[in-house]
Amino acid sequence: MSISLGEIAERFGCELRGDRDVRVHHVATLRGADAASVSFLANVVYRDQLETTGAAAVIVSAEHADACPTAALVTPNPYGVYAKVATVLHPPRPLSPGVHPAASVAAGASVPASCEIAPGGVIEEGATLGERVYVGPNSTVGRGSRIGDDTRLLANVTVYHEVRIGARCILHSGAVIGSDGFGIAQNEHGWSKVPQVGGVEIGDDVEIGANTTVDRGAIEDTLIREGAKLDNQIQIAHNVTIGAHTAMAALTGVAGSSTIGSRCMIGGGSIIAGHLSICDNVLLAAGTGVASSITRPGAYGGFPANADDIGRWRKNVIRYGQLDDMSKRLRRLEKQMKNLSGD
Amino acid sequence: MSISLGEIAERFGCELRGDRDVRVHHVATLRGADAASVSFLANVVYRDQLETTGAAAVIVSAEHADACPTAALVTPNPYGVYAKVATVLHPPRPLSPGVHPAASVAAGASVPASCEIAPGGVIEEGATLGERVYVGPNSTVGRGSRIGDDTRLLANVTVYHEVRIGARCILHSGAVIGSDGFGIAQNEHGWSKVPQVGGVEIGDDVEIGANTTVDRGAIEDTLIREGAKLDNQIQIAHNVTIGAHTAMAALTGVAGSSTIGSRCMIGGGSIIAGHLSICDNVLLAAGTGVASSITRPGAYGGFPANADDIGRWRKNVIRYGQLDDMSKRLRRLEKQMKNLSGD
Amino acid sequence: MSISLGEIAERFGCELRGDRDVRVHHVATLRGADAASVSFLANVVYRDQLETTGAAAVIVSAEHADACPTAALVTPNPYGVYAKVATVLHPPRPLSPGVHPAASVAAGASVPASCEIAPGGVIEEGATLGERVYVGPNSTVGRGSRIGDDTRLLANVTVYHEVRIGARCILHSGAVIGSDGFGIAQNEHGWSKVPQVGGVEIGDDVEIGANTTVDRGAIEDTLIREGAKLDNQIQIAHNVTIGAHTAMAALTGVAGSSTIGSRCMIGGGSIIAGHLSICDNVLLAAGTGVASSITRPGAYGGFPANADDIGRWRKNVIRYGQLDDMSKRLRRLEKQMKNLSGD
Repeated sequence: MSISLGEIAERFGCELRGDRDVRVHHVATLRGADAASVSFLANVVYRDQLETTGAAAVIVSAEHADACPTAALVTPNPYGVYAKVATVLHPPRPLSPGVHPAASVAAGASVPASCEIAPGGVIEEGATLGERVYVGPNSTVGRGSRIGDDTRLLANVTVYHEVRIGARCILHSGAVIGSDGFGIAQNEHGWSKVPQVGGVEIGDDVEIGANTTVDRGAIEDTLIREGAKLDNQIQIAHNVTIGAHTAMAALTGVAGSSTIGSRCMIGGGSIIAGHLSICDNVLLAAGTGVASSITRPGAYGGFPANADDIGRWRKNVIRYGQLDDMSKRLRRLEKQMKNLSGD
Repeated sequence: MSISLGEIAERFGCELRGDRDVRVHHVATLRGADAASVSFLANVVYRDQLETTGAAAVIVSAEHADACPTAALVTPNPYGVYAKVATVLHPPRPLSPGVHPAASVAAGASVPASCEIAPGGVIEEGATLGERVYVGPNSTVGRGSRIGDDTRLLANVTVYHEVRIGARCILHSGAVIGSDGFGIAQNEHGWSKVPQVGGVEIGDDVEIGANTTVDRGAIEDTLIREGAKLDNQIQIAHNVTIGAHTAMAALTGVAGSSTIGSRCMIGGGSIIAGHLSICDNVLLAAGTGVASSITRPGAYGGFPANADDIGRWRKNVIRYGQLDDMSKRLRRLEKQMKNLSGD
Repeated sequence: MSISLGEIAERFGCELRGDRDVRVHHVATLRGADAASVSFLANVVYRDQLETTGAAAVIVSAEHADACPTAALVTPNPYGVYAKVATVLHPPRPLSPGVHPAASVAAGASVPASCEIAPGGVIEEGATLGERVYVGPNSTVGRGSRIGDDTRLLANVTVYHEVRIGARCILHSGAVIGSDGFGIAQNEHGWSKVPQVGGVEIGDDVEIGANTTVDRGAIEDTLIREGAKLDNQIQIAHNVTIGAHTAMAALTGVAGSSTIGSRCMIGGGSIIAGHLSICDNVLLAAGTGVASSITRPGAYGGFPANADDIGRWRKNVIRYGQLDDMSKRLRRLEKQMKNLSGD
C-alpha cells in the first residue's frame, strides 16, 4: 500500500507544505522514520524528535509546522488524521472466506459464504453470522447468538448463547461475552444460584479488549452501545449499560446495574460500584473509585471515596503524602495549647 | 416451563395472597413484567415499581405486601425464593450426551456415556469425568484430573493436570485451574523457577467466574471448599484456602498461602496479602486491602492498610476528602499560636 | 526420580551434615514430609516445624542448622537450592513429539519433528517454531510468529501474528500476546481505531502467567526482556519495556510506553502510569500507584500518588487510619484558640 501526500491532504483535510507527488508506504515514529514513511507529532514530549526526523512527511499542528524539516501535513487534529492514514497504509488482513475443515458449524447455524471460520472455530445451533464475519482459531459463538457484518472475533474468544453483537466490532482474544452475572441468594445452607436469563447487546463499532469479560443480564440485557471502546481485562457486570463512544482503559471494573453515559473516558484500574449512574462526558482519572452517582460532566478522581472533582482530589493526594508531618504538627500545637491554657 | 402460584407457595414456603391456579411462565423485572411473569422485590430502591407492575405475581416481604397490586407470594427471603422459582422456570439446558467428532478424548481417559463433550473439547490421558459432566467448546481437562458429577465447564476453560473438582460445579469461560503458582527463587543470574508440584482441590457446588485463575500449590494443594462462589477475573495464588460458602466479587486477588474462612463476603477489587488468615464470617467492603490477619468476625474496609473496622474506615474516607482543608486549618492554627506565644 | 544427599551437596554447593548415601524421591513441606522426602526452611514463620519434621533431609541456612533433627543441607540460599533440587526431582513432563491429528498446521508453517502440538493447536501460515516447542490444547500461534527452542505454551494460549518469543519460555493458559494496543483517536463522531502495526518481542527464559495480556506496539515493538517473570492477570500495554530479570506479581498493570528497568520486583495489584521510566533495582510494595518516573533504586509504595519512599509511605498509611481522630483534635484546638484569642 502507498498513498501520495496530495491524496492525504485532500482526503483528510490537511494543508500540505511540500511535494504533493511524494508517496509514503508505511507509518513510523519520528525517531524511527525513513524516507518511505509518514510520521506525526501529537504529544509535545516528542517535539525534540521532530527536528531530526527522517520521515518523508509529518502530520502536525500549525503550531509546530515551522519546525518540521520535511513535508508537513498541517491539521488541527494530527492524531486523528494519523489514525486514518495508518488505516489506509495498514488495512486489516483481508479474509479468506470459507469454513476451515477443523472448524465446527452446527446444522442449524447460519454462516454466509463471505465469512472466514478458522480452525477450531465453533458455531453452535441457531447462531447467525452477518456477511464477512471472522471467527478466529478456537473461538466459539453460542446457541442463538447473532454477529453483525464485518465483525471480527480473534482467537480464543467466547460468545455465550443469545448474545447480539453489532457490525464492524472487534473482539480480542480471551474476551468472554455473556457469562453468567454474579447472582447468588442466601439460603439456609449457603448460596442458591440465581439463573441469569438476560442477554448481552453490543452495538456497532465496539472494540472489546483481550480477556475482558461482559456478563449477561440477570433478567434484562447488559448493554454496550455503539462506538464504545473497551481495553483489556475489564469486568462489566450484569445489567450494566455503557454509553455510546465511551472509552474505558484496562483493568477497570463496573459492578452490577450501573449506567455509564456517552462519551465518557474512564481511566485504567477504576472501580465503579453497583446501582449508580454516571452522566455523559465524565472523565475519571486512573484508579478512581466511584461510590455514588455523578450527575455533572467534568473530571473526577479519588479512591476509595465518592469521586471528587479532580482538582480537589489532586490536592488531597498531595496532603496524603504529608500526613505523618501533619500529625506531628498537630501534636506540637496541642502541647503548646496545653502550656498556654495552663491545664 | 410453567408453575402455578399455589405450587410456588407450597414448595418454597410462601403465604399466597391471590389465585393459586394462576400459572407463571417466566421471570421479569417489576417494570418489564407481563401477565405471564413472576417478579420480586428485594431492594427498596425498586419499591416505586411495585405499585405499577404488570406481573401476575410478586415475591415480596410482609412489609411491602400490601402495596402489591397483584398476587403476592409473601416470604421473609424474597430473593432466595426468587432464585428457586427462577431455577424451576429457567433450568439449565439439558445435555446432549456424547463426544462430538471434533472433540479429543485420550485413550486412557474415562468419560461416561452421560457426558457431553463439545467440539474442540480435549480430555487428556488419565482424566476421569463423573456422570453428566459437560465440557464446552475448546475446553481442556488435563492429565489425571478428576471432575465430579454434573459439573459444567463452559467454553475455553482450562483445567491443568492433577486437579480435582467436585460435583455440580460451574466453571465459566476463560477460567484457568491449576496453573503454576508464582514460585521463583533468586540465583546468581536472576531467577530459578520453583516447580509447583501441588494440585488444586475444589469442593462441590463451587462456581468459578469467567477468566478467574486458581494456581496449583507449590508442594501441597490450593483448596476451594464446597459452596464457595467466585466471580470473574479473581486471582487465587498457590496454597490459598477459600472456606466453604464464601462469596468473592470480581477483580479480587488473594496472595499465596493465605486462608479465608467460611461464609465470608469479599467485596470486588479487594487485595489480600499472603501468609495471613481471615476468620469465618468476615465481610470486606469493595476495594479493601488486607495486610494482616483478621481474627474477629465483622465488617472491614480500607486500603492500603490493615483492614480497619468498617465504621472507622468510612469516617476516615470522609476525612480523606477534607485533607487539604485540614492542612490549611492546621497552618492557620500554627500562625495564631505563634502570635499568641509571642515567638 | 531420586537423588542422594551427597549429590545434592556437590551439585548445589551445600555443606552436608548427615549420610551422603541417603536418597530422596520428592519434595515436601516440613510438616508434611516423610522419610523419602527433602524439605527446606526459607521463612522463619515455619521455624517451629523444623524441629518435628519427618523429612530425610532439610535444606537450611547455617543459622538454623543446629535445630534440624535430621540430615541438614546447609547453604546461604536455602530457597534457591530447593528450587534446583525440586527441578531434579520433579522435571517438566517430557514431550511426546508430533502433531496431533486434531491440531492444524498451515502449509507454510515450520514445525520441527521434535515439537509436540496438542489437539486443537493451531499454527498459522508463516509461523516458525524452534526445536522441542510444546503447543498445548487449543492454543494458537499466529501468522509469521516465531517461538524459540524449548518454549512451552500451555492450553488456550493465544500468540497473535508477527510476535517473537525466545527460548525456554513458559506461557500459561489464557495468556494473550500481541493483541492490539488501546489506540483510539477522537474524530467528529467518536473514535477512530489507530492500527497497531508494531509487534511484541519476548526474550529467553521469560514466564508469563495465566490470563496475562501483552499488547503489541502501536508502531514499534513491546519488549519483555530475558529472564522476566510475570504472574497471572497482568496487563502490559503497547510499547512498554520490561527489563531483564524483573519479577511482577499478579493483577499489576503497566500503561503505554512506560519502561521498567532490570531486576525490579513489582508487588501485586500495582498500577504504573504511561510514558514514564522506572530505573533498575526498584522494589514496589503491593498495591503501589506510580504516577511519575522513579530514578533511584530502592523500595517504594503508596497509592494513588507518586510512589513515595517506603518508610514514609508506611507512616502515612498508619496516619490514614487516624484521620478521623486527627480531624477531631484539630476542631478542638480551633475552639480553644478561639477562646484564648477572645474572638
